[in-house]
Formats: sequence, structure tokens, C-alpha cells
Amino acid sequence: MLNDFRKDYILNRWVVIATERQRRPVDFIRETATKQSVEEDSCPFCPGNEDKTPPATLVYLQRKEDLVKEKDTDGRRHRDWLIRCVPNMYPAFSAPRKDDPWEGKAVGYHEVLIESPNHSEHPAESRIPQLTHVINGYIDRLKALSESPFVKYVSIFRNHGSEAGASLSHAHSQIIATPIVPTVLAEELSSSRDYHQKHGKCVFCEIIRKESKGPRMIWENTEYLTFTPWAAIHPFEFWVIPKIHQTTLQNLNQNGVKSLATALKTCLRALRRLLKDPPYNFAFHIAPQGARNDPYHWHLEVYPKLAIWAGFEKSTGVFINTISPERAASQMKEIIE
Amino acid sequence: MLNDFRKDYILNRWVVIATERQRRPVDFIRETATKQSVEEDSCPFCPGNEDKTPPATLVYLQRKEDLVKEKDTDGRRHRDWLIRCVPNMYPAFSAPRKDDPWEGKAVGYHEVLIESPNHSEHPAESRIPQLTHVINGYIDRLKALSESPFVKYVSIFRNHGSEAGASLSHAHSQIIATPIVPTVLAEELSSSRDYHQKHGKCVFCEIIRKESKGPRMIWENTEYLTFTPWAAIHPFEFWVIPKIHQTTLQNLNQNGVKSLATALKTCLRALRRLLKDPPYNFAFHIAPQGARNDPYHWHLEVYPKLAIWAGFEKSTGVFINTISPERAASQMKEIIE
Repeated sequence: MLNDFRKDYILNRWVVIATERQRRPVDFIRETATKQSVEEDSCPFCPGNEDKTPPATLVYLQRKEDLVKEKDTDGRRHRDWLIRCVPNMYPAFSAPRKDDPWEGKAVGYHEVLIESPNHSEHPAESRIPQLTHVINGYIDRLKALSESPFVKYVSIFRNHGSEAGASLSHAHSQIIATPIVPTVLAEELSSSRDYHQKHGKCVFCEIIRKESKGPRMIWENTEYLTFTPWAAIHPFEFWVIPKIHQTTLQNLNQNGVKSLATALKTCLRALRRLLKDPPYNFAFHIAPQGARNDPYHWHLEVYPKLAIWAGFEKSTGVFINTISPERAASQMKEIIE
Repeated sequence: MLNDFRKDYILNRWVVIATERQRRPVDFIRETATKQSVEEDSCPFCPGNEDKTPPATLVYLQRKEDLVKEKDTDGRRHRDWLIRCVPNMYPAFSAPRKDDPWEGKAVGYHEVLIESPNHSEHPAESRIPQLTHVINGYIDRLKALSESPFVKYVSIFRNHGSEAGASLSHAHSQIIATPIVPTVLAEELSSSRDYHQKHGKCVFCEIIRKESKGPRMIWENTEYLTFTPWAAIHPFEFWVIPKIHQTTLQNLNQNGVKSLATALKTCLRALRRLLKDPPYNFAFHIAPQGARNDPYHWHLEVYPKLAIWAGFEKSTGVFINTISPERAASQMKEIIE
């Protein structure tokens, strides 16, 4: 039987669904546990080591009944935090100092959101209140960084496991603000504009309508749908998308945040149980600055790191996925049920 | 100091040259040797095991003074070959059988070119006559596969080391014929057409003119220039490009083949000595079928596998390179001299 050859919903991106070398989920389980890169006692993100990082741009503190939001001042680091957001010590993008030339430079911000005082807290096992702090932290920093005049996009993402690029194992996400709309987002935005012009509808709303009834659906609650995309380029790739039309995270209410935490936890937990804690990356796709009223629709994409992109993928931009999204979804669904 | 932010010569692709976390070449040397995946005695590509593969589509044989080109017939496998090209046992793309539906299927070819009877022969250490057989083998298969009516592009690439996706360690390359012009090639082609229309010149000829005099030049001979590209997305990425304008490999003469073998060997050897046999991928970029008279210019891109693409790179298409192309080139140059 010939392999399927599928094009992405909106990107000019193709993937071979290599059913001839179809693998069972068990084939994706690695022999070694997800690698931890730094010993816990020297971890700069653990409580007590706050001085090992630059001052926090945001901390959440519990003060009796109230959640209080603060930031560190140079001389003093807050302790007993719930979450903590700090500038990356080795930033890819950084804010220009007064006389720095901007031209040709990677101007922006690069922060780390420490998700919990608990070194090994993972979203798959975390309590929902802690996860809502994390998501609220994303939103707070997104709002703050978006105000900078040179920021065109804010990328919020998480790397889990050293094979997926996490250089520190303490539970953390990263936030990078860039001076351009990144390539993938620009193409998604342009295609969804085209679709809207042609059909008068949001292409993502159409995807939700279709995927919620089909063989790639994994799990849903009132607010979110989770599914494996038609042309997934990663084995067990899945998306979490709000059912109502929303272009970005900025106006998410607390019900939406809690519901997102639940949807994400449910699927990450299924992935963890099915494939024994695989390394992965996830990233939010949101409308860029200045496109908040465009026909875009934010969502979260999760990429388990279970394959290697080699000469073919890297040189052509065409991908090979050795498990069909339908089979991946049915396995995830089964383990949730 | 702020990091550089560079755009590719012609692709809409950005890279941060992260000089703030600049690394020395020694930092890229891995602790373990490049992993070998299959023991030599069970290797299906070693001489004596020809029956473990499908019949060869091409073998080169030495018959007294002459080089003879043959193919296997079903019942009989040629022995004592110099190089051998066989269908991939687990093809990503395959030829349709008579009544197979083509629609939505990965129609094409997927072959393996076994580069030598010697299991561990590596282009960095290979004799030039053997390397010219390999390149001639690429060209022969490129010509043959291009004749198929559903083939739009032929990708010729090599993966070295299991970390770079090589599942068998016997020296081999792969050839994949696809029914579309792949994304990256389509964008390169479109941009070089635009450039030609605007400036009346081949953009790659201009790149050669510029890079041959600059800090990214590595090595050259009469026919080829090797250099690290301005917006390299891989640490120690380098290109090999013919100095005269040629759109594809198909009309390369024997002098050009030998000279290419020398240029490639020189740079791969420098890479191997500098970084202690790093895993890598390389791939030819050639004009697609039907665009052989377009203002395109073939070249070979080599991607050492020394970094991990994580959530940011995968979701945005923006890259981070922790060594500047200028520094990588000067290190390569130094070790060659």
C-alpha cells in the first residue's frame, strides 16, 4: 500500500504518513528515562537559589487568602513564590541598551518562567491551581512584553527533557519576544486571511468543526478541543484549541484558564503514560501584535520528540511521520478512558 | 552586546547568531563517538549480504580496464561491486502499482546508494576515485528517476551517525524522488526568479562573488567554492557551490565530478578533525524537473548535527546558532591549512 501524502491545513507543508513502516506506540518508548541535565542541589531555579538568577520580572506570592503579584528589586529577591519569571541568563533576544545600534540585531526579550518551587513538578501531574498560575503567568508576561514598541510577536513555549532541548530540568517554560513576526506565524496568518476572504469564515473554526467529530479527536471539555492534526509532522503531535473564536490569549478569563489547564494536563498525562515520559516541546501560536482583530485563532501545539529530522527533512521542508495521526489519537483516547 | 539577527540570502528565514553564548569549537565536541547502529557482521549493505536487499537498480563493476554499469536481475545479485544502488526496504515514497490510486499518496522512489564495499568508508577519508563513483552514481540515478512522469524533484542526501538519523552505519546516501517540488526548493526557486527579474543576474552567482572574498570563505579550487553561509542555521554549516552557473548536476563532466569530490572531501575532513567525527546531514539543492533553464544554481549544503531544535525553532521557524559563520569558517580554514 502506498503511504499517504498530506498537506497541512494552511501551511505549504507536506508530510508522508509512512504507514509502510508504521510503528506501534511501544516502538516509540525509549530505553532510557528522559534525561535530567542538572543536579537538583545546584539548580538555579530551586527555592533558596534565587540569587543565582537575575531579579524576577514577575513573582506570584500567596499572602493569606490573596494571590499577590510582585517583581524583584535589584537588591532583594522574593522568597516563597508560587511561580517566578526571570530574564534568561543567556538570552537569544535582548533589549537594546541606550546607545546600542538596533540594525541587524536580535532585539527583544527572553525570559524563563519557573513553573513551581518543586524541581520535578510536571504539568501532567501538577495540581490544577498550580497550572493556572503558570498560564496566568504566561498571560501577564505576554501583556507586559507586548507593550514594548519593537516587539512584533511573543513566543511562549516549553521544552521537556534534554533530548528536546531543555538544558535545565527544573520545571520551566520560556518566553521570547521577537522584533519580527516569525516565519511560521506569518504564513499561518496570511493563509487564514486568504481563507477568510474567500469563505467568510475562520479556517480554524472550520478545522474544529471537522476534527471534533473525526478519528483524530482525543479529548474535549466545554471550552477546548484536543486532537492530532491531519498532517502532523511529529509522531503523537497534538493541538489544544479553544472552541470559541479567540485570536490571542490576552483576554482569556479565569474559567478559560482553568479549563485550558485541565485540557493540557489530561493530554500530557496520556502522553506520559503511553510513552513513558517522552521528551517534548510545546508552543502557543497566537495572533501577532497588530493582528489581534485578524481572522486568526490561537492554539497550543505539542510536539513529542520521538524522531530525528535528517538530510531529507532539513533540506526539503518535507516531513515523514511514522505513525498516523488517527492511530496516535486513538491510542491517546484509549489511555484517557 | 546584542546578538546578530540575520535573514537568509533568499529564503524568508531568520537566525539569531547568539554571540552572547558564543561557543568555542571544543564545546561542540561530544563526549561519545558517533554512534554506529548495526553490527558489521549483520550489515545488509556489506559484500556477501547482497541478498538481504532488493535487486540493485545500479551497480558499478570493474572489468579489467573498464568501469561497467549494470543492474541486478531478480534471481541474481552482482558481487564485487564498487558502488551499489538499491530500493529502500522501507520507502517513504514508492512507485504506484498498476491499480493503486495516486490521489493523496506518496508516489515516487526511495533508493539507497551504498558508497563502498568497505563498511566504514567515510567521504572525509575516502580515495578520490571512489568518491567520483559515488557522485557519478548520484547523477546516473538522478537522470533515470527524472524520466518518470510523476517525479517533480529528486533529493540526494546523506545522513552520518545515528544522532543525525542514519539507521545503518554502512557508508550510504539516499535518493528520494518526490511528486511535488519540495517547500524549501520551491521558495528558493521563486526567490531566485524574482532576483533575476529585478537584477538580470543569478542570485547565487552574486553570492559566490561576495563570499569568495569574505570572512566566510573556507576553501576553493578552480571549479568550486566552499563557505559558511551568512545566515547559517546550523553550527559549522557549509556549502559547496560550482563557480560557473549550472542549474543541476545532470551535465557535470568528469572533471567537475572529480573536483567536487575533492572539495567535499577537503571540507568534510576538516569538520571531522575539528569536531572529532560529528554526526551530520548533507543534501544537494538542484533545479527541479522542468526548471532546468531557470535562474537556479545547484549547490550542496552540509549540516553538522551539533544543536537541538526545540520549541522556539519548531513553532516559529526562527533559528538560533551559537557559533558565528565567520568563526566557524576561520576554524575550518585553519585546520585545512
